[in-house]
Amino acid sequence: MIETLAILAPGLLGGSLGMACHEKGLAKRIVVWARRPAIRQACANGNWCDATFDTAAEAAREADLVVVCTPVEHILPLIREISPILKPGAVVTDVGSTKAVISHEAPNSLPEGCFFVGSHPMAGSEKSGLEHARRDLFQNSPCFITPLEETPDQAFQTVRDLWEGVGMQILEAAPDVHDKLVARVSHLPHFIASALSVTVGRTDLPWKEACGQGLRDTTRVAAGHPEMWRDICLQNREALLNVLKDFQGSLTAFTDALESKDFDRLEGLLEEGRGYRSELSSYDD
Amino acid sequence: MIETLAILAPGLLGGSLGMACHEKGLAKRIVVWARRPAIRQACANGNWCDATFDTAAEAAREADLVVVCTPVEHILPLIREISPILKPGAVVTDVGSTKAVISHEAPNSLPEGCFFVGSHPMAGSEKSGLEHARRDLFQNSPCFITPLEETPDQAFQTVRDLWEGVGMQILEAAPDVHDKLVARVSHLPHFIASALSVTVGRTDLPWKEACGQGLRDTTRVAAGHPEMWRDICLQNREALLNVLKDFQGSLTAFTDALESKDFDRLEGLLEEGRGYRSELSSYDD
Repeated sequence: MIETLAILAPGLLGGSLGMACHEKGLAKRIVVWARRPAIRQACANGNWCDATFDTAAEAAREADLVVVCTPVEHILPLIREISPILKPGAVVTDVGSTKAVISHEAPNSLPEGCFFVGSHPMAGSEKSGLEHARRDLFQNSPCFITPLEETPDQAFQTVRDLWEGVGMQILEAAPDVHDKLVARVSHLPHFIASALSVTVGRTDLPWKEACGQGLRDTTRVAAGHPEMWRDICLQNREALLNVLKDFQGSLTAFTDALESKDFDRLEGLLEEGRGYRSELSSYDD
Repeated sequence: MIETLAILAPGLLGGSLGMACHEKGLAKRIVVWARRPAIRQACANGNWCDATFDTAAEAAREADLVVVCTPVEHILPLIREISPILKPGAVVTDVGSTKAVISHEAPNSLPEGCFFVGSHPMAGSEKSGLEHARRDLFQNSPCFITPLEETPDQAFQTVRDLWEGVGMQILEAAPDVHDKLVARVSHLPHFIASALSVTVGRTDLPWKEACGQGLRDTTRVAAGHPEMWRDICLQNREALLNVLKDFQGSLTAFTDALESKDFDRLEGLLEEGRGYRSELSSYDD
């Protein structure tokens, strides 16, 4: 069991983590820092939160495990801020959607005897903010952990126990492999859903009234926060550009088949797409 | 109330329609033709079906309203088949996803005094077949009705009463406008979801294990029947090609912004996509 768990900047993920850790008895003490007083107050009102602090350093001071839940671009600055006061042996992790930059930089910011292990819990939705937090958010969803070769086993195990403890399926991957993979399974779908939403909406036709479940599903993630996705695109730009080239190739194949009236070829492509999608069915809720 | 309603080729849509009409008391008698004996038997076993027939003509003979539920490419041939035996005043409609070809051709196949009015109930999902039919399938979903200028009001009203009676939101549109609109809100999302599924699946990386809710939602419709979608693409090829050009333009704008590191522009596009998607939220379940 963790003695003191510090959650920095709890929103949907951090809040849900606090609730889940409390419910599962994973930590003796859960402390929080949030920038906004209203969020600190909301945490203090929750039964899962033992203390709130005005600064990240104060919250992290006694922590054995620190989980940084800020948007991606604030993770490294915040780790640098808390670094001087961390106690020996403290482990720091995060919940950022990209891992290469953070996993390689963060260890350099920590004092000797403190360890960083990157995490990416793939839970949540287009909704964000503490008000949507729920203790079962992580149940059965995948969570990447991205240790470096030099990451001590014990630090890795501490982070693994956390996410496994709240019900996640652990995937271990090198940070660069993680970034390539999420560019494919997460960032590309978001990018495409957003471009689709822009395309569908730019019309005088009554598209909203004619919208069925298909459009609703296909564009759902486009409702996500633009600033957050801007940062993800920024951090994972190269991997995303690469997989966008792959998508462009697929789309061209589909479009060419339609253009040239090669409907056998089109059906073959539709069949291929259906095959891959069907492989996900066993993972469906 | 309809005296005799004939449902030809009941699958997900036709079966659900029979169940809903029975529940709401919209027809005194509901009769069915299905090509496969097993489907006829399954219908005969349902409390909503009063009789089944071995041929479409027999089923349609006494009907006041005939609903053709075959795949798109079989609709016109089937209408030609039943045409000689229709009783005077009979109204024929369909459930096809494209309307221009059918709405203009079908009236020419009918005897004088019988009328065709095209319908497109936008319900259902990637699942098809009678075994997935349910009486509440249509509740609160949109349904297009696509009369021509010369369509008599009474025939239009008969079809409107049917779909409104099973809980649908009626949208009236000219067949060509309908096809442009569904190319945008239904066929394009399917095409894109399928191309996305093909892209994501073509990799050695463990994409299935890393799949989150975003990919699941964005690709869900790609699990639909390839033959059915082949036919839809065939029938609505031009409108789909046009809206694919629009999509290509949007995707290029997104990709160029990422490529050139114009993250303000990218955020603006993400914001635009979010705005359109948010307009659908009030329609969400």
